[in-house]
Amino acid sequence: MTKGEIKAMRNFKLTIEYDGTNYFGWQRQKRGPTIQETIESAIEKITKNGVKLIGSGRTDSGVHALGQVANFKTSTGLSAHQLQKALNSILPQDISILECSEADMTFHSQFDAKSKTYSYRILYRSSPSALDRLRAWHIPLILNLPEMKAASKTLIGEHDFRAFGLSTNTLKSTVREVLRLEISPGKNDNICFEIEATGFLKRMARLFVGTLIQVGRDRITVDGFRKMLESGERTKFARAAPPWGLYLKEVRY
Amino acid sequence: MTKGEIKAMRNFKLTIEYDGTNYFGWQRQKRGPTIQETIESAIEKITKNGVKLIGSGRTDSGVHALGQVANFKTSTGLSAHQLQKALNSILPQDISILECSEADMTFHSQFDAKSKTYSYRILYRSSPSALDRLRAWHIPLILNLPEMKAASKTLIGEHDFRAFGLSTNTLKSTVREVLRLEISPGKNDNICFEIEATGFLKRMARLFVGTLIQVGRDRITVDGFRKMLESGERTKFARAAPPWGLYLKEVRY
Repeated sequence: MTKGEIKAMRNFKLTIEYDGTNYFGWQRQKRGPTIQETIESAIEKITKNGVKLIGSGRTDSGVHALGQVANFKTSTGLSAHQLQKALNSILPQDISILECSEADMTFHSQFDAKSKTYSYRILYRSSPSALDRLRAWHIPLILNLPEMKAASKTLIGEHDFRAFGLSTNTLKSTVREVLRLEISPGKNDNICFEIEATGFLKRMARLFVGTLIQVGRDRITVDGFRKMLESGERTKFARAAPPWGLYLKEVRY
Repeated sequence: MTKGEIKAMRNFKLTIEYDGTNYFGWQRQKRGPTIQETIESAIEKITKNGVKLIGSGRTDSGVHALGQVANFKTSTGLSAHQLQKALNSILPQDISILECSEADMTFHSQFDAKSKTYSYRILYRSSPSALDRLRAWHIPLILNLPEMKAASKTLIGEHDFRAFGLSTNTLKSTVREVLRLEISPGKNDNICFEIEATGFLKRMARLFVGTLIQVGRDRITVDGFRKMLESGERTKFARAAPPWGLYLKEVRY
């Protein structure tokens, strides 16, 4: 390549695992370190050029990811495999690049997402867990699982979910479609929630789980839960589950 | 009870989970905080009396426990359930008392142990794990699992294991009996070792795993591995696996 020639831009897609414990969430901000800025800095160190990393969506402070997806454009000559290796050698150990591939220039990790899946882990036993204290929400109380499952079914389908979340932009719609919501006993005293939706309002996954737990504790009836969804009014019984049990598991395109 | 009356001593048995990351192992020492001294301090705060906590055995710096067992004698009037609740409310979150029960005065958690089971987790995939970085040993290389399993069978039974460990007292025997050693694929790209033995020499579990991985990488043949065991000489190919993949899983009495 001769001097002055313009290098072609390329678009890379990353699949990312992270431990959210020590970060102020995904989105770059002034309060403290975020996942987005940490990965952007690593890319800039490698490519020697400024970069904007676009995530499929934000995750809150303390929330984990098993498969966050993000993309960025760069003129680097490195292969996807070389980029992945270089990133994993520079990034702190609580962020890991699971996959790196070159995508079509039009690929946009946020706008092209068809659905996202979040999982939520509850440790359902009397004593707390030393090893999973930052990986699951410990609930040492009896839960009424059949009632929780019945209430969860009312969330399936297309609804205005403003009772269960905030829009980051008040002019935008709060209608989303929940494709799947499963509550299943996992191994070792775990209860696992898996929620797939076309999109999530801010706090939506945590408000689903936290408020379903209120149903499980007989503080809200299934009927009261349905009315909260239908009315769009968050009642005083609504609760957001803590962030450390939540995982962005998968983004589908 | 009248003043001056001597309170009866009682013997309590604890089952303990801990995250070993931030401790210099089980055994009280001057270098830094240990699990034993942390729990002893918590018991002393609750009972207002000095106490000696006897563990089933030591675990090395950084090693975890899912079911360490320990006992201590005290004249407290608290019930086992009250003691457990008080301990869990005082202890740091990386130590959790899973069970607390009153035992026979003769019960000794070290001398009465019939067997101990350690498990070891290997993350067997190319990219590292952000969430399990302190819970499993990441091996991004191809392993010859059939050879590892063949070599592991030579360890079963009663042997002098001095090639695979240190006695904490050079006058004591280095003969132990391995009752069970399983290597099995776990979920999510994990390989799990489970090792049950009548007792473990210092570093024995980690030397088993690390040296079996050397077999898996074709650095030692099954025959070479057997010769190392039989000769009692540790060769230059022996390796100790890192502590963060190891868990003291269960102690049988």
